[in-house]
Amino acid sequence: MNSPTPRSGRRVEPAQLADLAPASRILAAQGVVDGFGHVSMRHPAAPDRYLMARSIAPALVTPGDILEYDLDSTALNAAGRDSFLERFIHGEIYKARPDIMSVVHSHSPSVIPFGLVAVPMQAMFHNAAFIAAGVPVFDIRDQFGATDMLIGNGPKGVALAAVMGRKDIVLMRGHGSVACGPTLQSAVFRAVYTEVNARIQHWSAALGGGAPIAALDAEEGRLADQVNQTAGMRAWNLWRSQVKW
Amino acid sequence: MNSPTPRSGRRVEPAQLADLAPASRILAAQGVVDGFGHVSMRHPAAPDRYLMARSIAPALVTPGDILEYDLDSTALNAAGRDSFLERFIHGEIYKARPDIMSVVHSHSPSVIPFGLVAVPMQAMFHNAAFIAAGVPVFDIRDQFGATDMLIGNGPKGVALAAVMGRKDIVLMRGHGSVACGPTLQSAVFRAVYTEVNARIQHWSAALGGGAPIAALDAEEGRLADQVNQTAGMRAWNLWRSQVKW
Amino acid sequence: MNSPTPRSGRRVEPAQLADLAPASRILAAQGVVDGFGHVSMRHPAAPDRYLMARSIAPALVTPGDILEYDLDSTALNAAGRDSFLERFIHGEIYKARPDIMSVVHSHSPSVIPFGLVAVPMQAMFHNAAFIAAGVPVFDIRDQFGATDMLIGNGPKGVALAAVMGRKDIVLMRGHGSVACGPTLQSAVFRAVYTEVNARIQHWSAALGGGAPIAALDAEEGRLADQVNQTAGMRAWNLWRSQVKW
Amino acid sequence: MNSPTPRSGRRVEPAQLADLAPASRILAAQGVVDGFGHVSMRHPAAPDRYLMARSIAPALVTPGDILEYDLDSTALNAAGRDSFLERFIHGEIYKARPDIMSVVHSHSPSVIPFGLVAVPMQAMFHNAAFIAAGVPVFDIRDQFGATDMLIGNGPKGVALAAVMGRKDIVLMRGHGSVACGPTLQSAVFRAVYTEVNARIQHWSAALGGGAPIAALDAEEGRLADQVNQTAGMRAWNLWRSQVKW
Repeated sequence: MNSPTPRSGRRVEPAQLADLAPASRILAAQGVVDGFGHVSMRHPAAPDRYLMARSIAPALVTPGDILEYDLDSTALNAAGRDSFLERFIHGEIYKARPDIMSVVHSHSPSVIPFGLVAVPMQAMFHNAAFIAAGVPVFDIRDQFGATDMLIGNGPKGVALAAVMGRKDIVLMRGHGSVACGPTLQSAVFRAVYTEVNARIQHWSAALGGGAPIAALDAEEGRLADQVNQTAGMRAWNLWRSQVKW
Repeated sequence: MNSPTPRSGRRVEPAQLADLAPASRILAAQGVVDGFGHVSMRHPAAPDRYLMARSIAPALVTPGDILEYDLDSTALNAAGRDSFLERFIHGEIYKARPDIMSVVHSHSPSVIPFGLVAVPMQAMFHNAAFIAAGVPVFDIRDQFGATDMLIGNGPKGVALAAVMGRKDIVLMRGHGSVACGPTLQSAVFRAVYTEVNARIQHWSAALGGGAPIAALDAEEGRLADQVNQTAGMRAWNLWRSQVKW
Repeated sequence: MNSPTPRSGRRVEPAQLADLAPASRILAAQGVVDGFGHVSMRHPAAPDRYLMARSIAPALVTPGDILEYDLDSTALNAAGRDSFLERFIHGEIYKARPDIMSVVHSHSPSVIPFGLVAVPMQAMFHNAAFIAAGVPVFDIRDQFGATDMLIGNGPKGVALAAVMGRKDIVLMRGHGSVACGPTLQSAVFRAVYTEVNARIQHWSAALGGGAPIAALDAEEGRLADQVNQTAGMRAWNLWRSQVKW
Repeated sequence: MNSPTPRSGRRVEPAQLADLAPASRILAAQGVVDGFGHVSMRHPAAPDRYLMARSIAPALVTPGDILEYDLDSTALNAAGRDSFLERFIHGEIYKARPDIMSVVHSHSPSVIPFGLVAVPMQAMFHNAAFIAAGVPVFDIRDQFGATDMLIGNGPKGVALAAVMGRKDIVLMRGHGSVACGPTLQSAVFRAVYTEVNARIQHWSAALGGGAPIAALDAEEGRLADQVNQTAGMRAWNLWRSQVKW
């Protein structure tokens, strides 16, 4: 990666960046993203900056594609390279939530239905434990009327972050979802298991004919999520071994 | 590719054709077509001609397999090579709709149910925005009685194009569907996301137990489809990198 | 392949056998069979003989694994090699139905439900047209009581063939299904599209909430199946290019 | 593999271990496990010992990763290597059930719903015949209240084994399942076909609209399971040929 320009807060050590391009490819390999979607991490040394690839399909990201952004989602070292239209998802969540260090935005098909009908996503198993805290749904129409559905500017990002509140996930009606975490690895883990959880809930709902599902309750979710923060690295290590960089 | 015969309107530059064989392979790689299905583009220099592969499975198409057709779907440079039985889908749509530059015909399994039961396909997310304009269903039985289900001649193609009308998609009962666009890349994008959209709608319908789905409305669809015409190239560039030619 | 022993009716030319091992691998590649399942063809020169692999997973079959059987399903050239327990499916169908030249037995998961609940399989699209003639269900329990569910002897094969009657397909409760055809390629084609058709019908039934499905009627099925006998070779040629031998 | 330390009961011949690492990779290749899950076998010469990989994703296990445990699930030759948190599943089942020689623990998404709603898993086809004996569901909450959902100590393993009783399978609410067998190959076979069976039952339940399913009864299950113990090796041989070691 090129060194950040002087406008940047601080230079990022290659080792600190070493997992961001693979994170993008992992999400593609796991079916969470396709030609679209993006993952970012807060700058490890400058909390008012974040790092994310230029506008490119997730499966193609290389370390040289990573740009540095301020929290208004202005690229600081683009050098003519395009940014994702929806980078404001990332910047506004980092502003609103100092505890969040990484953000994944995706359109995984199994998750989208939970933003389209009035059935809340619940935690079907321990790997998706963070869902047990609740999953808000953002409808861009409520505040902005008919739009292109995209979080294409700061105010829309602010509105999305507000609906997410203190949760680490938010669904977007007719669009996709966002999963966040205290580390890059955790955010990727949660995004992957949100997709798996959605498939399990589709099956559970159909099998039970709409009867209540014995999902994890909030306390079970809190306890299991703690374990995932460390045990989850076993999955990360597998996924990391399966992609480039 | 061989030069077109003198009967052809104009010679096609290789660079102009450079994406048509890959488009066919992309549709196979994305699960939109299997051993059957076809994609065509209007001749870039002669609007009364279109280009499409000879009769061959989509995953096997090479640039040398591309033939030139007039709008009655007569091959102009076949030199003994077979044409698809259903080429009239393409010719008659190009006749009826001068704004359409590319046509994809497929039998993707997730889409077929929407032509078999009285549940209209709706736009589940922004990538399938063009669906929000409405999805007509063509039943060949209405006009032609019991048939082999195929669009095997001009009149059947005319009838199909008439049911499609001003939309860019039409479902065919007990058969498959057609997706169209103002560019080859757009038609492929729409065919791929029609398939994804169908899966999302199956899940949404089951999850909601038949309750209304908060799909994109017509204006949201129109706005989001505009973005797809340009942002969609990010997906195309990924897919293009994953197939030969 | 070793030459058949003298007990065999006639020597089989390698060229005549050239598609049987690949047929087995095609069925595995298309997800119709897994570690189990088998495909046979009637001996091209001796109608009282059939050819089928020794007991081995379909994806591993080589031409050297093909054995010759009489219609009582006795291997004529086994030379110590094991036969499939359920070879009687093949022998008894060939006895009962001189018009059938090839038989596929499989346990594809999407098909099995139609043998477990009282919902008949219908033809969802033209590629599965042969299904429109009707799909009988064989319940081994009716005649044989509690068994290991397998067609492990001649009488069970006779009973299965009797339930199949003049159709070219039969489902087996709690077990799998059989698809037949007038050529090896046709039987494989039908087995593949039975699996696809099953998936489409699951989606259609759920989407329609149990309402009638506008499936192909018998005459549409008859007409479309005729086309499949020739146009189906386009799929075969693709599949054949994707497996060994 | 390193020789077991003196604390171990007996040295394990490499040939006896030769299938344990591949068993782990087979389960990954078949989609039964992802980054998590584990398979063990009872020590072939010391019934009070079992063998299982160190804490690592199943797809990455090599023979050198196999550790020896006593039935309290203390690793005897770890040499600093980490053990799975949930190894007590294995140790306590081996204690309670001398007839069981191998245990698989997994979180396959299709199986989890049967632990979340009040619909018992039934045997949909002969390959999953062992399920016909009945499938108990363990809810960790019943005895331990709100937890991290994991079998992280001996008492929780004891409780799980008690719910399993004389069956060879047990589901775990909000978590996953355990499948056991009299041989390593049998346990892997059962775990794989439990996953397939779950998918078939989802389709069957939806297709039948909740009507009774003509599943295998207990006697059919008993008879078919006997055949699987030997015929199942055909699938094992295929799977074994598809993974390393």
